[in-house]
Amino acid sequence: MTAEIITIGDEILIGQITNTNSACIACELNLIGISVGRMTTVGDTKEEIITSIKEAAVRAEIILITGGLGPTSDDITKPALCEYFDTKLVFSHEVYSFVEAFLQKRGGTMNELNKSQAMVPESARLLLNPVGTAAGLWFEKDHKIFIAMPGVPFEMEKMMIDQVLPSINEKFDLPYIYHKTILTAGVAESKLAIDIADWEKQLPKSIKLAYLPTLGMVKLRLSGYGNEAVKDLVEEDVMKLQSLLGDIIYGYDQETLEIALGNILMQQNKTLATAESCTGGNIARLITSISGSSSYFNGGIVAYSNDIKHNLLKVPMELITNNGAVSKQVVESMAINILDIMNVDYSISISGIAGPTGGSVEKPVGTIWVAIASRKSVLSQKLQLGDNRERNIIRSSNMALNMLRLALLQNKI
Amino acid sequence: MTAEIITIGDEILIGQITNTNSACIACELNLIGISVGRMTTVGDTKEEIITSIKEAAVRAEIILITGGLGPTSDDITKPALCEYFDTKLVFSHEVYSFVEAFLQKRGGTMNELNKSQAMVPESARLLLNPVGTAAGLWFEKDHKIFIAMPGVPFEMEKMMIDQVLPSINEKFDLPYIYHKTILTAGVAESKLAIDIADWEKQLPKSIKLAYLPTLGMVKLRLSGYGNEAVKDLVEEDVMKLQSLLGDIIYGYDQETLEIALGNILMQQNKTLATAESCTGGNIARLITSISGSSSYFNGGIVAYSNDIKHNLLKVPMELITNNGAVSKQVVESMAINILDIMNVDYSISISGIAGPTGGSVEKPVGTIWVAIASRKSVLSQKLQLGDNRERNIIRSSNMALNMLRLALLQNKI
Repeated sequence: MTAEIITIGDEILIGQITNTNSACIACELNLIGISVGRMTTVGDTKEEIITSIKEAAVRAEIILITGGLGPTSDDITKPALCEYFDTKLVFSHEVYSFVEAFLQKRGGTMNELNKSQAMVPESARLLLNPVGTAAGLWFEKDHKIFIAMPGVPFEMEKMMIDQVLPSINEKFDLPYIYHKTILTAGVAESKLAIDIADWEKQLPKSIKLAYLPTLGMVKLRLSGYGNEAVKDLVEEDVMKLQSLLGDIIYGYDQETLEIALGNILMQQNKTLATAESCTGGNIARLITSISGSSSYFNGGIVAYSNDIKHNLLKVPMELITNNGAVSKQVVESMAINILDIMNVDYSISISGIAGPTGGSVEKPVGTIWVAIASRKSVLSQKLQLGDNRERNIIRSSNMALNMLRLALLQNKI
Repeated sequence: MTAEIITIGDEILIGQITNTNSACIACELNLIGISVGRMTTVGDTKEEIITSIKEAAVRAEIILITGGLGPTSDDITKPALCEYFDTKLVFSHEVYSFVEAFLQKRGGTMNELNKSQAMVPESARLLLNPVGTAAGLWFEKDHKIFIAMPGVPFEMEKMMIDQVLPSINEKFDLPYIYHKTILTAGVAESKLAIDIADWEKQLPKSIKLAYLPTLGMVKLRLSGYGNEAVKDLVEEDVMKLQSLLGDIIYGYDQETLEIALGNILMQQNKTLATAESCTGGNIARLITSISGSSSYFNGGIVAYSNDIKHNLLKVPMELITNNGAVSKQVVESMAINILDIMNVDYSISISGIAGPTGGSVEKPVGTIWVAIASRKSVLSQKLQLGDNRERNIIRSSNMALNMLRLALLQNKI
């Protein structure tokens, strides 16, 4: 069973927005054993839309389409679908009432554009949209399924999970695919590949390995194909990898470093605070992106100016004057002092030159100091990263989270 | 002149990573007047790669390929290209030295996998990679250009900007496309569409309008096609829109709300601090994501626990007890108090129930209070959002930034 995903929108073709819908749909389909053979993006042109649907229908059994169902003039997916399926737009009372109710709940009222959302292709089964005004459309033709969903990511996602997946599941007897992703931090891809080369060689043919490097982290994905027995095979190989890599592995599948760190803190019943300069609140943001983080995260201070480092974080002015704000002495002082300020067990502090400007010969852009502290000890580390501000912030945030994670696991703090 | 983008990688087809490369490439191509006709993603399979290149070559003059150039076993773009271009892999001393130098700079050493990066298709012109180990490849065949770049986004982006774009520019006499995006905040798409319906009707045929709604914001993109004269036409219509929408417009093209707010603060020579609860540092992160923000942003406090709201932000305990942490009284107190704590002219504070749990009948998930303060006054606003934690954080952060932006522009604070 193969699916294809077609995303419609000039805004994607000109690079104004990133296509996140395809990844979301693919992820959901894989979980129920449907592999995606191809993803295609075309513009808001009737001919292009129809051509891409025709081509996809030759290769795949399920074609999922997103985008172009909105109420404005550049939304032409509905006319294109009418032409392809040889049907016409008709007024749906059901959609009309649904849109009206949706708008009322939000304090809005029906206008001409919203009303046009109730015009839908006659031969489609309707997928009502509880979080937006564009209904989804389900067509069947020549034993193939075609599903059109709104392009707004959260509207699409809700429709996909609540309506599309159950319907697909009901319709097909699906094969078995099992994915497991092993998440590692702190080791480069090429070093990791050599460390696990022997393990990789012994993998059975039914299991495929993929490397996915991101900033400071490498994900290893194992995909097993066949029947349910392949799940145990994959899990066996994950166990072998576990004993090979140890603490380098911070989690599996959808976990993140902030989830892994949060879990350790919860298990140990400990609390955390942050004192950030160059990351500007990004470490606190990552930690608090996790629901339930309030049980271990008390708070943080973003000390962007030296005055705040001194006045709020109580870093002695002479430490800053003598060593600079980006120094071992200053980050260690920040990490130690925030413990009492926030009344916590552990802390993370960071100060650096995120760039792209502001560096010197002695401390070039990308020089970043990280410290972690407990009531017993303080540890610090200097990072030497590149000159891209955004990347430096993401990478150093991850490295700081990982530094505390490892120290807690290994009782080093 | 039409281009197509082919992204290679099973990790994209299973939805593990979002394809950001296509958007980045498309954006760059559009700036030099090359439109992208289609984007395709295929898996790490030789046949799929070759088929997709063949198909793209029928429709487009320039084919850009990313992914699968890495050193590990699942990277098979090079063998696929060798087969398509009827050439073979040969050892490149130039690439070898480049990779060696790159690794040395980072404190790494050459291993077998890194060495394999020096094997490149004989007929390709090489694009050396200063920030990674995979060289880019430039092929020409039947008057068409094929460019393969690494899949790691920042390696691809650097190669694209520094090497690929200049080479394409040199090779072709390019047509003219002019895009201008008008960025609005605080008005829903369907209301905006009605407000500007008359303006939209009078647009000349050579100018196309697209609506791009995101959380709390709508971008309006005008695309003019033809010769350089179309630029003036587009700018004229932008001016008309400006007088129609006024302060709803926060910027143009790549601007963000945090840039717009930062610019106002710089112009007025004023400073800002934040006091965040439910957004957990996200507002500070957005503000500090801008290089140069240290000239107007002193710092912030993430007061996740009530103790921190009281001890650090000096919110009276009875305010919290009587009204709850998510209340007009508490956010106003946070906003006023942070002014002195951080010694700034303006502040933003926020406290809410981000979700997905933690709501009550009186204050359901998505109830968020925002305040802004100056030495003269304090303004607050209650938001009623949905139950998705991530979306609530992003949306309320944007609304808070926009609230201060509007108040400063309109002298309301």
